[in-house]
Amino acid sequence: MSMKIALAQLNYIIGDFEQNTNKMLQQLRTAKTAGVDLIVFAELSTCAYPPRDFLEFSHFIEKCHASVEKLALECTGIAAIVGLPTVNPKKEGKNLYNSACVLQNGKITDTIHKALLPTYDIFDEYRYFEPNRNFHCVTIGSEKIALTICEDLWNIDDDPLYTSCPMDELIQENPSIIINIAASPFDYAHAAQRKSILQKNIHKYKLPLVYVNHVGAQTELIFDGGSLAFNRSGHVITEAVSFEESLSLVEFTNGDLHVAKGTPSTPSITNKYQSIHDALILGISDYFSKQQFKKAILGLSGGIDSAVVTYLAAKALGPQNVKVLLMPSRYSSSGSIDDSVQLVNTLGVESEIIPIEPVFDSFLSALSPAFEGLPANITEENLQARTRGILLMAQSNKFGSILLNTTNKSEMAVGYGTLYGDMCGGLSVIGDVYKTEVYELVKYINREQEIIPTNIITKAPSAELRPDQKDSDSLPDYEILDTLLYQYIEQRKGPDDLLAMGFDESLVRRVLKMVNTNEYKRHQTAPILRVSPKAFGSGRRMPIVAKYLS
Amino acid sequence: MSMKIALAQLNYIIGDFEQNTNKMLQQLRTAKTAGVDLIVFAELSTCAYPPRDFLEFSHFIEKCHASVEKLALECTGIAAIVGLPTVNPKKEGKNLYNSACVLQNGKITDTIHKALLPTYDIFDEYRYFEPNRNFHCVTIGSEKIALTICEDLWNIDDDPLYTSCPMDELIQENPSIIINIAASPFDYAHAAQRKSILQKNIHKYKLPLVYVNHVGAQTELIFDGGSLAFNRSGHVITEAVSFEESLSLVEFTNGDLHVAKGTPSTPSITNKYQSIHDALILGISDYFSKQQFKKAILGLSGGIDSAVVTYLAAKALGPQNVKVLLMPSRYSSSGSIDDSVQLVNTLGVESEIIPIEPVFDSFLSALSPAFEGLPANITEENLQARTRGILLMAQSNKFGSILLNTTNKSEMAVGYGTLYGDMCGGLSVIGDVYKTEVYELVKYINREQEIIPTNIITKAPSAELRPDQKDSDSLPDYEILDTLLYQYIEQRKGPDDLLAMGFDESLVRRVLKMVNTNEYKRHQTAPILRVSPKAFGSGRRMPIVAKYLS
Repeated sequence: MSMKIALAQLNYIIGDFEQNTNKMLQQLRTAKTAGVDLIVFAELSTCAYPPRDFLEFSHFIEKCHASVEKLALECTGIAAIVGLPTVNPKKEGKNLYNSACVLQNGKITDTIHKALLPTYDIFDEYRYFEPNRNFHCVTIGSEKIALTICEDLWNIDDDPLYTSCPMDELIQENPSIIINIAASPFDYAHAAQRKSILQKNIHKYKLPLVYVNHVGAQTELIFDGGSLAFNRSGHVITEAVSFEESLSLVEFTNGDLHVAKGTPSTPSITNKYQSIHDALILGISDYFSKQQFKKAILGLSGGIDSAVVTYLAAKALGPQNVKVLLMPSRYSSSGSIDDSVQLVNTLGVESEIIPIEPVFDSFLSALSPAFEGLPANITEENLQARTRGILLMAQSNKFGSILLNTTNKSEMAVGYGTLYGDMCGGLSVIGDVYKTEVYELVKYINREQEIIPTNIITKAPSAELRPDQKDSDSLPDYEILDTLLYQYIEQRKGPDDLLAMGFDESLVRRVLKMVNTNEYKRHQTAPILRVSPKAFGSGRRMPIVAKYLS
Repeated sequence: MSMKIALAQLNYIIGDFEQNTNKMLQQLRTAKTAGVDLIVFAELSTCAYPPRDFLEFSHFIEKCHASVEKLALECTGIAAIVGLPTVNPKKEGKNLYNSACVLQNGKITDTIHKALLPTYDIFDEYRYFEPNRNFHCVTIGSEKIALTICEDLWNIDDDPLYTSCPMDELIQENPSIIINIAASPFDYAHAAQRKSILQKNIHKYKLPLVYVNHVGAQTELIFDGGSLAFNRSGHVITEAVSFEESLSLVEFTNGDLHVAKGTPSTPSITNKYQSIHDALILGISDYFSKQQFKKAILGLSGGIDSAVVTYLAAKALGPQNVKVLLMPSRYSSSGSIDDSVQLVNTLGVESEIIPIEPVFDSFLSALSPAFEGLPANITEENLQARTRGILLMAQSNKFGSILLNTTNKSEMAVGYGTLYGDMCGGLSVIGDVYKTEVYELVKYINREQEIIPTNIITKAPSAELRPDQKDSDSLPDYEILDTLLYQYIEQRKGPDDLLAMGFDESLVRRVLKMVNTNEYKRHQTAPILRVSPKAFGSGRRMPIVAKYLS
């Protein structure tokens, strides 16, 4: 027996049932023409992932079901696996399951439910779904398939998060292949981890494996795809290109998977900064295209962060769709303008210079009755940043462009930024990239030619909000700061762990306090494109009013 | 056998182990002096609720355990029940339990774990905790007690969320009383629902019941307390005063609960607007006091929303700690200033008038090269709102005061507000109160005398950002809008349900689209004091980039 299987790695839009269904139908027809026996779509492919609280609307669930019924009608001479939420018929437990339907002979022939429901970091699945407790393999053609959904294969490590293991149940029915449909977002460490987990399953259960993931960005979450087929020895047969849609074909013959003729396999990206680079570009372009926005605007300060975001925006949207404002004040160095102009010319984006002094002065005189006799302080610094934010938002409103935020993760962590000032924006592009990682990203961007000017890279970081200001006046050296932040944020090391690792006690106390007391700023920030295993946003939930480590 | 039980309804601070422990110790000593045999503290009382991702730090968990050890040492001649997270010793499953420890004879004598983990609305408990599957009653003195944690008693309705019911297990050991420790936040419908659920348990299991809840606000969540003791007939023996700390005493004798001599019982507040009024005042005052802030600032527009927030702030913080800015433009009616001045005088708050024209003009001239030849539109309206926002933030920065946001729930829902303008603020006071409810709240405030001037109540709502602007120019009548919003937001009715309810189709389409496409604004808003069963914020999680109903 032979079965040709297609891995459909597609970019869906949350709740866009018409477009998602049409996209699946089109791939189904293409696959049918190519003689495919089974096409596999990703987890919750009907509605896209994550649908969040839309799942609480029965109308939304009905739309998912209608999509699957429409797909089923076309499944003659081909079978399909598709993901959707289904209603739990039992009175007890949550109202929904996270399910996969098998479509063949023009109808739904089987439905299975996800058992292990990720509820950590950015995942909230137990908020919506009842875990499955009854397991069975599905039959397609004459093959018995262990059909699993994403996390169902992940309970295989030394510190299992769940008390059950779905594959231990399914293997008892002697399936001939494992198929896993997933919605597993990108971070720079995830591709390697995913491959390792899948291979552990292959080695444990001695079966070949097909894995199909989403591609595309859903606000802050970026799906890299990376759909995979492994033979029963655990070798990769095909690997879908990252960050792009694709339809990959494999052959299941003689109990094992083989590469289908003419199917390219693209090794996954192993360079961390290349993957971050590609992810951020996809993150920007999907944020815009899925909302039918075309144009971006941002402030170009002469620093490295706004330079990198300008470059990424130009790559994602085309330089003709990017406008930068240069908004010098009395504290701006002349170098900042020159460097910005050089970058603008290299990238070919639109630019405008608006000095902020007149607006800043008018704010100062409006406030002078109240502020009389009081020394200048952070208030006046914030006023400059806010004047810039408002000028950017005015142009955003007038021209229908989206303001891109340029705050990096180090600043986001310690609250080194002005709320309603440089923290304005519809999307935070590098809010999950530490300052030291921004420099590495620039090395990658400049790997073949100088795109980001050397001056921008070598100057000392400064907010330029008062005379001769440097970031290092109020922050530790970024090398040390970022190492400490990584241990606290990504690795959840507490103060005792950090001291044991050799960090200075007063530094630990100071930095942890900065991170915790600035939660209120991050609460009001734009969605942050997630590229690390622990990004600020829905994956990190902290109280605002609290005393711990503050 | 007789046992005197104290219900300790206390206001904790998240992660403030020193203060929380001292507060519990003090109550323990008071209770001991009063001859109490058992003092009951609330769920997770050691660390306060909700600790959120602080639970991922082992240092945090150790601090909770240390608090309980300290309390245990004082438990001689008295027993205590206290809530804390404990480590799951098993390899499988989540690392923590949500637990209650029994302290007596100077040590921890028993620990039980929560089985039903609320993971919906504002709750995320399965994010952190493994559900308990092994049940036993605890023994204190000679009494066998069915000790349960909050949600453990809630699986008793017709549509049970869980597949197990802890009390069905515990009842098999023949306990003589149910004790439930809770962390159950206020909403205007919750007190009645809670009483009903507890009474259902009493009637099902034929046991008296003690219920101890938190009081106090934790950023957006407000705990009303409402701790209760019922006898085995289901009658309320004592009810702790809402929105205040208290120590209530009851006697357990002859197998039933009786009121202890001299213990007052305060019937819970049944007037919806009285309860919202009291909740919002506690929400403001705890937000400030727990962060050691004293002073508030806000913009007073002449409209009803900012008038109500000024009143609530003056009640919560004292009028001497509240400053309002009146910031007229060419579009402000003279009535707006007069009405505001009248309110300022009535309340005794500080005020300052800052006309925004000069700053607004300086923005327009800075933007004139780019905007030349383009008609004025929403951009110029937003510029006025943002100028006001920045003036408020400048005073907030200079004087260390917190800016209170005055957006109501109807505006928050449809996006009728300017990001970085009137949506600025550290705390949204009435963002969970619909416009029509704001009017009802004013009726309650003015029940004995005119505090909010009649002019402010009777004028047509207007943002005053262009000549003769009225909210009704761009929004449906608030009576209709709020009814529709309630059905969509609180009741999760989809478009088909809404049409079946008789709402106009184009109105439904228009309003649902406004709500969904303005998710990006709410994502960047201040935390909103929660008073309804479905508030914007952590209890309502919607995608930003999505096409469903938009």
